[in-house]
Amino acid sequence: MTVDIDQHRLTRELVKLAGFSDAPAPAVTRVVYSETDRRAREYVKGLCADASLAVREDAVGNTFARWPGSEPELAAVGTGSHIDAIPHAGQYDGTVGVLGGLEAIRALQRSGLRPRRSIELLIFASEEPTRFGIGCFGSRLLAGALDESAGRQLRDKEGQTLDEWRAAAGFTGALASVRLPANHYAAFLELHIEQGPLLERATIPIGVVTAIAAPASWHIWVEGEGGHAGAVLMPQRRDAFCAAAEIVLAVEQAARSTGAVDTVGTVGVCEVFPGTVNSVPSRVRLELDVRDTDADRRDGVLASIDGACQKVAARRGVAVRKEVINADPPAQCDAIAVEALARAASTHGLAFQKMVSRAYHDSLFMSRIAPTAMLFIACRDGISHRPDEYSSPEAIAQGALVLAEAMAELAQ
Amino acid sequence: MTVDIDQHRLTRELVKLAGFSDAPAPAVTRVVYSETDRRAREYVKGLCADASLAVREDAVGNTFARWPGSEPELAAVGTGSHIDAIPHAGQYDGTVGVLGGLEAIRALQRSGLRPRRSIELLIFASEEPTRFGIGCFGSRLLAGALDESAGRQLRDKEGQTLDEWRAAAGFTGALASVRLPANHYAAFLELHIEQGPLLERATIPIGVVTAIAAPASWHIWVEGEGGHAGAVLMPQRRDAFCAAAEIVLAVEQAARSTGAVDTVGTVGVCEVFPGTVNSVPSRVRLELDVRDTDADRRDGVLASIDGACQKVAARRGVAVRKEVINADPPAQCDAIAVEALARAASTHGLAFQKMVSRAYHDSLFMSRIAPTAMLFIACRDGISHRPDEYSSPEAIAQGALVLAEAMAELAQ
Repeated sequence: MTVDIDQHRLTRELVKLAGFSDAPAPAVTRVVYSETDRRAREYVKGLCADASLAVREDAVGNTFARWPGSEPELAAVGTGSHIDAIPHAGQYDGTVGVLGGLEAIRALQRSGLRPRRSIELLIFASEEPTRFGIGCFGSRLLAGALDESAGRQLRDKEGQTLDEWRAAAGFTGALASVRLPANHYAAFLELHIEQGPLLERATIPIGVVTAIAAPASWHIWVEGEGGHAGAVLMPQRRDAFCAAAEIVLAVEQAARSTGAVDTVGTVGVCEVFPGTVNSVPSRVRLELDVRDTDADRRDGVLASIDGACQKVAARRGVAVRKEVINADPPAQCDAIAVEALARAASTHGLAFQKMVSRAYHDSLFMSRIAPTAMLFIACRDGISHRPDEYSSPEAIAQGALVLAEAMAELAQ
Repeated sequence: MTVDIDQHRLTRELVKLAGFSDAPAPAVTRVVYSETDRRAREYVKGLCADASLAVREDAVGNTFARWPGSEPELAAVGTGSHIDAIPHAGQYDGTVGVLGGLEAIRALQRSGLRPRRSIELLIFASEEPTRFGIGCFGSRLLAGALDESAGRQLRDKEGQTLDEWRAAAGFTGALASVRLPANHYAAFLELHIEQGPLLERATIPIGVVTAIAAPASWHIWVEGEGGHAGAVLMPQRRDAFCAAAEIVLAVEQAARSTGAVDTVGTVGVCEVFPGTVNSVPSRVRLELDVRDTDADRRDGVLASIDGACQKVAARRGVAVRKEVINADPPAQCDAIAVEALARAASTHGLAFQKMVSRAYHDSLFMSRIAPTAMLFIACRDGISHRPDEYSSPEAIAQGALVLAEAMAELAQ
């Protein structure tokens, strides 16, 4: 069996997909259930149909494209990732796993392989938290990590629900119907850019992921007292933004103080109310993201941030409350799937290193219902979630090749 | 001459004007050149016409309503304020000076007064900085404090210019035509709520303003480096929002450290880019407001903030740049106008205190082209720029009464 990745075709398809964007190139903005998202889905589904894959969409838009095996009643081998992109993102996050996964399947078809198990490409409904404030709602629902009632409570900033958004996008049916049976996949492999600098620095083409870090996210509201910026004297102030600024610095301090390189803490969203230059801020909303490969260490950081919030509240006479959006456990990758990826890299003479994913992926949730592993390729300067995100066509093709080889082994 | 203020009518008109709002009651949002602003202007112009005042609008929408004197070639006595309101503001800031000024004129008409000088109500185009980021562009243009080329450069957040906005609102003509001749007003008096707690605490009904504090405003941009919130390790970060948080706290510290009660510093606007929970902030924009009754002390605070910005930039490896939006000198009120207000309060048996305005008013600029003074009335808890802003009908009527009496004296 000779597996040949069509690097040029794959590159052309990635460029074409990047064109479905609500931001000027090279930036990509593609938010789930937007018109741009719909058009991008149509494009990818068209490519799947061209490859003779049977396409199915579930009630939230998770999309399955299946190449039936010779024993189609067996659990399938899955691969896939997401095509949604945060505002002003790059062209490779998620898309490499979708189009690279598709090209891996086409390469196996061209090789003459007749797999025993079906091989299935899975495009997750939305990995990014842009619209509803929570990442991976598609894979959470697939894995039963988000139940129907919690799913129905998801809302965007304007209060529009997931149910309203998905209906408008043409996806109907009960949320509970999204959940996959535990024996749907015999293995699930996700190809992704590293989103960190380690592979590039080590000049190693392939990263085999053995664990995925534990993410947590909070919304934090600070309520102080507003007033006229000229007239309210400093000693009388209970400025919500000054209190929020202390919380932001406390997050940074808590994440830095664990002594572990894998601990990260970020406040990426800040809304100041009423938000005018001549008013003392009365209310601030922050969104917090904390991750670690060690769940206990992460929870220690969260406890430290919580303590800082309470101290700031008491000292400044403001109210601080939080809502836990998610606090997920880390995932251990499946040993058999990991070894299949490592073997596939060796077969093609590609160096690899085993590593931890500090970024958050749909595989974190797929690992609950399938033996799961991930495969990383280098991206320039470790940059992601920015317009200058970049992985070379050669690196992407190498990733697709290793993925194809591992899927072929797991499908027999 | 007996001057009687129609308190009930004035109250009804204030309630009616508050209904022109883009926020649910009791909040008022009325931004210059919005449809709501247009409807509110039409309402007030109708009231002026009902009082037989001759209405004229200039090229940006400053509106003049004149009661001709027996010697109409003499410089007029002016009064007025603004009707625009920041998002989620209250019902009294500015409007008390417009409708209270109108009722003062009507009361003088009813008293049988035949003034020598014309008496003119002036409704400034926009006192609030909401749309274009700079306060008082109407009175700045009237006073020659903003020249035509600087005026043409004013833009909103979407890049739409003042010229485009005013044309869409029906105001045309050269910006230079807005400037008033130096002899237009013999005196200008502005009635306003205090926006601070001093009168209420002292249970004194009338404040006679002798000086207006010196305001300054900057926009500050912090440029760091973005990236994935999971993957960029803490030691590698140049988080623009953490740097901005330090600047916010430095502003508070600098304003508190002068030892003078009149120094205030506020960061009321913060925009974080790209503004998603899973991205390290790459860029932040802040809007800063610093005021003091002493211009040198204020400039010392600004220098201290500038120094803090440079230290934060150097330590964190981010770039911090600022744009000075305005840095105006304080205004001394005119002694004759001040004494006319003081005498008018005494005439009606109303206690008064002389005081400084820490808030920013169109009178700051009117003082450059006219002998100017201001008249304050108490507002509950000193609250302003909030939906719960409140002055009693009695307090407003007392303010209008003192204003009418002083205008009558100055118009003879």
